[in-house]
Amino acid sequence: MTTVGILGGGQLARMLALAGAPLGLRFRVLDVSADACAGQCAPLTVADYHDRAALERFADSVDVVTFDFENVPAQSAHWLAERCPVFPNPNALALTQDRLAEKQLFASLGLATPAFRTVDSHADLIAACAEIGFPCILKTRRLGYDGKGQYRLRATSDIAAAWSAIGGAPLILEAFVRFDRELSVIAVRAQNGELRSYPLAQNWHQDGVLSASLAPAPEQTEVAALAVAAVHRLAEQLDYVGVLALELFDCQGQLLANEMAPRVHNSGHWTIEAADCSQFANHLRAVTGLPLGSTAMHGVAAMLNWVGKLPDRGAVLSEPRGYFHDYGKAARDGRKVGHATIMAEQPAQLADALGRVAARLHRQHQIAPLLAML
Amino acid sequence: MTTVGILGGGQLARMLALAGAPLGLRFRVLDVSADACAGQCAPLTVADYHDRAALERFADSVDVVTFDFENVPAQSAHWLAERCPVFPNPNALALTQDRLAEKQLFASLGLATPAFRTVDSHADLIAACAEIGFPCILKTRRLGYDGKGQYRLRATSDIAAAWSAIGGAPLILEAFVRFDRELSVIAVRAQNGELRSYPLAQNWHQDGVLSASLAPAPEQTEVAALAVAAVHRLAEQLDYVGVLALELFDCQGQLLANEMAPRVHNSGHWTIEAADCSQFANHLRAVTGLPLGSTAMHGVAAMLNWVGKLPDRGAVLSEPRGYFHDYGKAARDGRKVGHATIMAEQPAQLADALGRVAARLHRQHQIAPLLAML
Repeated sequence: MTTVGILGGGQLARMLALAGAPLGLRFRVLDVSADACAGQCAPLTVADYHDRAALERFADSVDVVTFDFENVPAQSAHWLAERCPVFPNPNALALTQDRLAEKQLFASLGLATPAFRTVDSHADLIAACAEIGFPCILKTRRLGYDGKGQYRLRATSDIAAAWSAIGGAPLILEAFVRFDRELSVIAVRAQNGELRSYPLAQNWHQDGVLSASLAPAPEQTEVAALAVAAVHRLAEQLDYVGVLALELFDCQGQLLANEMAPRVHNSGHWTIEAADCSQFANHLRAVTGLPLGSTAMHGVAAMLNWVGKLPDRGAVLSEPRGYFHDYGKAARDGRKVGHATIMAEQPAQLADALGRVAARLHRQHQIAPLLAML
Repeated sequence: MTTVGILGGGQLARMLALAGAPLGLRFRVLDVSADACAGQCAPLTVADYHDRAALERFADSVDVVTFDFENVPAQSAHWLAERCPVFPNPNALALTQDRLAEKQLFASLGLATPAFRTVDSHADLIAACAEIGFPCILKTRRLGYDGKGQYRLRATSDIAAAWSAIGGAPLILEAFVRFDRELSVIAVRAQNGELRSYPLAQNWHQDGVLSASLAPAPEQTEVAALAVAAVHRLAEQLDYVGVLALELFDCQGQLLANEMAPRVHNSGHWTIEAADCSQFANHLRAVTGLPLGSTAMHGVAAMLNWVGKLPDRGAVLSEPRGYFHDYGKAARDGRKVGHATIMAEQPAQLADALGRVAARLHRQHQIAPLLAML
């Protein structure tokens, strides 16, 4: 009997626990919040990620540790790794916690990225803006997610406001890329080095938060090989074990690496129903040393994120291949509280199904970008 | 937030809880055993099914009650139904607890069955054997499952031993049917009366316990309409809500109703991966008033039961569409401890995959009947 410890108890931990139960895996989840939604599916330890006594008890109660949350302090991950196996390894985790280190890694592996400069002072910011030009985005190097810790600059006159908003923390200035579309690729690497990847997804964000994904991304033949090669190179370089996600900008067929996530990824939730083996099951297979599962998908799938509050589930469940995921969270502005996956054999059938769901839920704004691609 | 109470905490309750979590359902499970395996996936109340105080607390803590186990005392189900919604209704549950009442219901609806006689005395048994002939099977009317409470008679000389084995309890004597194959059909009925059915499965038993299922059952075109009509008639007659399974003997195209189960059924476990909406999710949709899901299946699927102890999971997981289910139970002779589902697009591919699994696990005996059909 293998017990998997998960640091972070949000919806990703919840979906990991649900995917792992059929494999006979047991779970323990550690989170700072007593109402972390994974606690509905697995025993929850409430503790700070710096609490060494709690971490020690946690490590003693599990066989392997993994993450639902990439901002677990890297020191804690290193400390745990001296006590039990930790996948992905703490160095990989630490690297993804720093946007500058991440971009430098991309560059060192020959992966194109948006232009970037490190910014540690107001003077740095002025110089970086001059080099990169406008528009550009100032970001904290650490602890940013879902559009948080970011400030968009359109002109020199925005520099003062940007600095006053997030100045002081270690920063990175990135060129604003006029991409044609956003793509993501999700790979899984086993302890023996075997690598597999899912078909690319095309993603749409709203206010910095993922709103919808379409898989497979349309017309991916040319870019898929590039994207898969990129995420495989990263996984090998990091001696990574588990699921690794890479977000990319597609600029007329040139791919720019935007950021990676050392965990299962929101743009891969469609794999639960539409892939032979979901990203959640495959992550668990990797970290527990089981054979990797097939990443092939069947038909086409769209994922719709529910942000803030859940819509009527009947509007999704009345579709023959409509799947509703309620994370068991209280409603809150900006919070990811659930998602839906809609599947079909062919794009035209998926468009019909999405059109019906959009009409029932009055969510044309969320679904229109998908329909435009189908 | 809806909480579903499940009476019985075995693998069926476990798979219900796992299927219901994405729908945002919460669960509570009641079982007589503190190590009931569903307790790994939902809060478990340990109590006797006759314990009214415990049942009252249980009813107060849930919104609807359903069953993992058909031998919950019917009086307890009736008593609960005065306190909260219970699906399927207690009358339907009670009827399926009595093999005689069940066979009489089949007959009253025009469904052919093996010949049967009620047996309440040694004299009844002698008379019934004379009428039905040999071979025949003496069964307890109540509390039989997985071949328990049964005695097979080959000749008059077996009567004394059969009576001494299970005589005294209310009994039924059934003709032993020389069937060509065993089939099952699983239907789901919603609170509004809507009915859906899954493709038929063909089943193989070993020592009275289900060993393997194949779905769809080969050459089911002729018999499927009969089987679906039969299970729909039963569900309507019983004003049934939830999943109802009917086991049938196929005798050269004539179907004989063998028995029904008022719950999700072992011969429908393949629906988890191979149907649009699994029997578990559909049962929960029905009992909580959500729209029923599609019962369509994709490709072909085989289910292998693990009885006694689990085999090496890698032998299954290394198949591209091989799924392993570990119920989290201790090994014990005759106990269902898990199952595997193997899927493919076409029967020939499924045969190849099953052949590989059989070779890796040295389980040709279990898999050969499937291969003979593919």
